[in-house]
Amino acid sequence: MRTHEAGAVHGQGEAPAWLLVPKDVNALLQVLWPATAHKDADGVLTVGGLPVTEIARRVGTPAYVIDKADFLARAQGFRDEMARAFAPDGPSHLGGADVYYAGKAFLTRGVARWVASLGLGLDVCTGGELGIALDGGMPASRIAFHGNNKSDDEVRRALSAGVGHLVIDSLQEIGQVAGIAGELGVVAPVMIRVRVGVEAHTHEYIATSHEDQKFGVSLQDGSAFEAVRRVLADPRLELVGLHSHIGSQIFDSAGFAESIRRSLVLHARVKDELGYECRELGLGGGFGVAYTTGHDPLTPEQVANQLAGAVARDCADLGLTPPRVSIEPGRAIAGPAGLTLYTVGVTKKVTLDGGFTRLYVSVDGGMSDNVRGALYSAD
Amino acid sequence: MRTHEAGAVHGQGEAPAWLLVPKDVNALLQVLWPATAHKDADGVLTVGGLPVTEIARRVGTPAYVIDKADFLARAQGFRDEMARAFAPDGPSHLGGADVYYAGKAFLTRGVARWVASLGLGLDVCTGGELGIALDGGMPASRIAFHGNNKSDDEVRRALSAGVGHLVIDSLQEIGQVAGIAGELGVVAPVMIRVRVGVEAHTHEYIATSHEDQKFGVSLQDGSAFEAVRRVLADPRLELVGLHSHIGSQIFDSAGFAESIRRSLVLHARVKDELGYECRELGLGGGFGVAYTTGHDPLTPEQVANQLAGAVARDCADLGLTPPRVSIEPGRAIAGPAGLTLYTVGVTKKVTLDGGFTRLYVSVDGGMSDNVRGALYSAD
Repeated sequence: MRTHEAGAVHGQGEAPAWLLVPKDVNALLQVLWPATAHKDADGVLTVGGLPVTEIARRVGTPAYVIDKADFLARAQGFRDEMARAFAPDGPSHLGGADVYYAGKAFLTRGVARWVASLGLGLDVCTGGELGIALDGGMPASRIAFHGNNKSDDEVRRALSAGVGHLVIDSLQEIGQVAGIAGELGVVAPVMIRVRVGVEAHTHEYIATSHEDQKFGVSLQDGSAFEAVRRVLADPRLELVGLHSHIGSQIFDSAGFAESIRRSLVLHARVKDELGYECRELGLGGGFGVAYTTGHDPLTPEQVANQLAGAVARDCADLGLTPPRVSIEPGRAIAGPAGLTLYTVGVTKKVTLDGGFTRLYVSVDGGMSDNVRGALYSAD
Repeated sequence: MRTHEAGAVHGQGEAPAWLLVPKDVNALLQVLWPATAHKDADGVLTVGGLPVTEIARRVGTPAYVIDKADFLARAQGFRDEMARAFAPDGPSHLGGADVYYAGKAFLTRGVARWVASLGLGLDVCTGGELGIALDGGMPASRIAFHGNNKSDDEVRRALSAGVGHLVIDSLQEIGQVAGIAGELGVVAPVMIRVRVGVEAHTHEYIATSHEDQKFGVSLQDGSAFEAVRRVLADPRLELVGLHSHIGSQIFDSAGFAESIRRSLVLHARVKDELGYECRELGLGGGFGVAYTTGHDPLTPEQVANQLAGAVARDCADLGLTPPRVSIEPGRAIAGPAGLTLYTVGVTKKVTLDGGFTRLYVSVDGGMSDNVRGALYSAD
């Protein structure tokens, strides 16, 4: 993969022949495309100050093009709004907040460097992503390690590197992480992913349902409480807090309010029965972005205010010290900042029954770089 | 990617913990799994003489495991049955046959070497596949280069290497290939992919419909005849013949009979109007394999006999010299010979509404190595 620094372009292939820019590009530009995207005087699409023709000439196509200014602005937006809404000295006297960029959305060494420079955390799901994050200069202490099926080697690498915490996904994993921490002579900081039983409103093919999903330990059947008990009882483990993740492409915070409520009820039970107050609460990601001009995503300010309101209310109700809260926006930062640049090759107009015609446009990329449409019937 | 020669294992990852072998493995073994697969005395699945535990220990998981004996036997089966059924000195006095292994099914340098050693041809769709085929020792003259959107660089590499033929997919491509052949000072041997308007019976999500598809030049609107005319008129191009491909996972030869009929009617028109007899006819691939014990694929003998019968009958009807016929089985050779080996990690039993339970089994692989299930709702 060739890398071009000014504008962070990654791609492979040959120079372009000609480019496809929709006729009515203005509506798309405003809602869907990166902040710096515009049509220049010659009618050519320009991103980050570079005409896409020039990007294609320099690095070839297909290429992922990430608008650094847009990415940084969105990441800063989440960071600043969460810090403001959850400030200990703010109106609700909350416990502060962290923002982890969800690396699964798009991660390169350059992206890790940007995230590190802003003071955000980074969440990774595999040993490969961990390696990229560290190579990009991300401090290990600000890395969260997720995954529902971590290998022993991945756990060992994460603990050896000194990641901020691992998110434990099953009762089985508690023994695995404790065992490896013991071998290494370290105490493993962990969060526990709780299956809170909330399904956020989203596209039906990417919804996770009530109990029928592979992630987390069940709140409903008592496994989540049992996981907390085991972690607290094990000197090789240090409980950082509870974690949940309720869906993706979420445009409404009602699901988050419900998952906050259920998680804090567990905080209260843990406090009552085990005499321990969880100090952090991870709310996951899934904040939606616009794929069509009909989508209306929440702004970072709305996300922060609505989550803070719910946490403040429930902590007051339940008599809890407000925990430090984290969120993990990924697509909501990287998605609108990025586009994929293809070169158009063969075009064919075919005649259908009834005399209708359809134009097939072949590009130099495929499902491997844009699998969403085929998998989820996405617009 | 690590490679293990005895049995051709390719994989990456860590050593296995334990393995999942279905309880009633015998029905699966007979119908779906590689020829040498069996349960050994300890109840462990064995392929190519190696227990899968040993394969996992040597190369790690996830790993694609290809049974060389099975692959070679299936490839030989197609080669020998087609040679017999289309023999010039056989009962129908046909024009001979070639079998091209369709590299898109599974291609490594080792596979290219096997295919070359059997005397089969190999069809490739990209410059990358061409490189693997050549690196594996496949003679360029037995390589067919497909693709509906070939880049100039791919055409240049294919012609420079001296591939047996390119399969031209559009009127647009005729000028492209001719231009590059002219630059290189070579005559480009080409087949023309004809959109014959036949849709073979297959799974609805992978069916190609009548005219509404991106491949080939239309028979119906006269483009196919025009393509033949242009190729014959251009001294930089040499017409090898017509080519069609009618679907995938086909369990019945009726669709092939129809595409043969339509292609040979075009042969007859070309003979009448342009005074030229096409010397080859490519029928593509798409021969089905069993994904469940309910599937009943055609044998190579059935394929060869049914295709030969149709070609003989139509050539007699139309007064044509029987062309040399080629087919391109890919999955029908590699599919049953292969399996993907995973290591099971976390397992979770979840309770659903009504008290039903579901067991989630996490493995160390994912959609990137087994995308079919999610894309096509495959069994």
